Amino acid sequence: MFKLIKKDKTTNARRGVLTTAHGTIQSPFFMPVGTSGTVKSLLVENLLTFDSQIVLSNTYHLFLRPGLEIMEDAGGLHPFMGWDRPILTDSGGYQVFSLTKFRKIKDDGVEFKSHIDGSTHFFTPEKVVDIQRVLGSDIMMPLDVCAPYPCTHKEALKSVEQTTLWAKRSKEHFIGKGHKRHKQHLFGIIQGAIFEELRLRSAEEILNIDMDGYAIGGVSVGEPVEEMFKTLDWVMPLMPANKPRYFMGIGLPDQIVKAVGEGIDMFDTCIPTRYGRHGAAFTSEGKIIVRNQTFAHDFGPLDKNCDCMVCRNHTRAYLRHLVAANEISGLTLISYHNVYFYVNLMRQIRQAIDEDRYEEFKKDFLKRYGSELS
Amino acid sequence: MFKLIKKDKTTNARRGVLTTAHGTIQSPFFMPVGTSGTVKSLLVENLLTFDSQIVLSNTYHLFLRPGLEIMEDAGGLHPFMGWDRPILTDSGGYQVFSLTKFRKIKDDGVEFKSHIDGSTHFFTPEKVVDIQRVLGSDIMMPLDVCAPYPCTHKEALKSVEQTTLWAKRSKEHFIGKGHKRHKQHLFGIIQGAIFEELRLRSAEEILNIDMDGYAIGGVSVGEPVEEMFKTLDWVMPLMPANKPRYFMGIGLPDQIVKAVGEGIDMFDTCIPTRYGRHGAAFTSEGKIIVRNQTFAHDFGPLDKNCDCMVCRNHTRAYLRHLVAANEISGLTLISYHNVYFYVNLMRQIRQAIDEDRYEEFKKDFLKRYGSELS
Repeated sequence: MFKLIKKDKTTNARRGVLTTAHGTIQSPFFMPVGTSGTVKSLLVENLLTFDSQIVLSNTYHLFLRPGLEIMEDAGGLHPFMGWDRPILTDSGGYQVFSLTKFRKIKDDGVEFKSHIDGSTHFFTPEKVVDIQRVLGSDIMMPLDVCAPYPCTHKEALKSVEQTTLWAKRSKEHFIGKGHKRHKQHLFGIIQGAIFEELRLRSAEEILNIDMDGYAIGGVSVGEPVEEMFKTLDWVMPLMPANKPRYFMGIGLPDQIVKAVGEGIDMFDTCIPTRYGRHGAAFTSEGKIIVRNQTFAHDFGPLDKNCDCMVCRNHTRAYLRHLVAANEISGLTLISYHNVYFYVNLMRQIRQAIDEDRYEEFKKDFLKRYGSELS
Repeated sequence: MFKLIKKDKTTNARRGVLTTAHGTIQSPFFMPVGTSGTVKSLLVENLLTFDSQIVLSNTYHLFLRPGLEIMEDAGGLHPFMGWDRPILTDSGGYQVFSLTKFRKIKDDGVEFKSHIDGSTHFFTPEKVVDIQRVLGSDIMMPLDVCAPYPCTHKEALKSVEQTTLWAKRSKEHFIGKGHKRHKQHLFGIIQGAIFEELRLRSAEEILNIDMDGYAIGGVSVGEPVEEMFKTLDWVMPLMPANKPRYFMGIGLPDQIVKAVGEGIDMFDTCIPTRYGRHGAAFTSEGKIIVRNQTFAHDFGPLDKNCDCMVCRNHTRAYLRHLVAANEISGLTLISYHNVYFYVNLMRQIRQAIDEDRYEEFKKDFLKRYGSELS
């Protein structure tokens, strides 16, 4: 499904193209997070206006609400959402470990209580594949065990063992069932928390299963940013060139720019919409808090280097007013700009790699953004 | 500013065109309500996609927040909102009487406490004109006194006297000040509550002032629908043919269809967006509560006779899911459809009048909608 187009001259950044049943995706790329079948406070129509290539959605959430019967009747998530471009669905593993108050990991799966109504459910690797077959996502993720931060070596080891075992069972079930509506792809997830030995072991085991792509999971769970990037130092040298690499749940704009330079192809995070709903906007010169009094008379755009609909049509003073007046349109406009900022950042990244100047692009971006990363 | 194009053959419905500094408006028309400089949960970009001719905004709200200094610096409400089509601003009279906990009517104006922060302000007819000169609305309304429902004859009489006095002072001040940024128009407001004699007196007094258009105010304040329409029976025969007629704060779709047949040209109401935020959608067959379980597996559009973006791209099942999952996009999509429904209804109304078949259109609409009106 992945074709490597070119490698940057001086960094490990790379350009590629993924082929799915719902079209091709130029990499590196960002996946706006549409947890419950919508990117929060945006419309799928908005995503098309700035040409988002793909969205991510959450198996855990969709399984609980609206539930599989409706998803089956709808003919899958694509027609349900009214989105006919590629979709990646996560496995629900992360949500089970982060959202639920009660969960119990057993050898064959994980029991949990819904964070919505407290009802009890049991996810097995096979069931999670089956759910994603009903959803019809183009890329599915296998059920994994995400160790928290901090955690003991023993806990991390257990999560690695379980994740490998479940990845094998996911693959077997995925192969055995065949395609439902259209061709789907199954990735592997590398765990191991902040332990080098465990990350290497997990990578080796998951790579051996031969998945369609490889994700680094269990990151951005509260660990320091240096720890997060250490994972890349350890794992990336093992990664095969001919498979896409996905840094799960990452990250802030400067973190994405750095990770691309380490060879990552795929990103997702709810940061642009979550920040947007809290009135914070990303700009080429760093983050701004739109509600601040300092913007009350500022009739410039959110980001003077941005050409999105919001920056073309609206001022900081207007957006600040909308946020201060608790208008939904304020949150929508800032979220729109933020997601555009991410999608457009990836376009600039791809262009820089195409032109063999990623090192320079990265340096310029991080400096202008005021990043502490290098 | 108003040109009567044609009168319907059998009803009192009429087609006209209003000319303003920000373009012409075909009447009869509906004004989506953008209280604080935004139509709630929609973007001005949305309003353009379905060709809304005008928006209404609230003097009271904009005066309190963001305040006149910012509106002055912005160059008025049009550039502040990023909307260059016509804008009507109301006088704040209705808000002072409906939103504030404390108010005191004096001969020269009304003192009130802000519903936002409790601060004390004083509106005079002159000040309200001045505020609207800063806002730069194309059509401004004079400060009036809106009697509540129910009210005594004495209260209603007082509100009529005050409204006439203030309308005269508004006109004098409006003429004396001249135009600020561009040509603006000033309407008159007819009060009188549910008393025929007072409505006739108010109409006579306000019409004598010779305003650019005439509004019927103090309606839809809790009175029965029959009472509301009685006002039209009394007042409409007095209205000059060459001035636009505005039924303030009206109403539900079937009420608009009926009022057009009585000769009304202009409408505004926050119903489409307020209902939208509460998950209720208007259809050609009446209102539906989208959250209802009955729509969980309904993969048809909100309204099978609607061609709006929402009805073309999304199903009732999806919208129900979004509302149930408390997704902002659900409220936005339903609000979008509802405002489109109103704007498109006015287009159909204009076409029916153009084709001399308003009687038939009205009958068909009211029947299909399940209305009790006739």
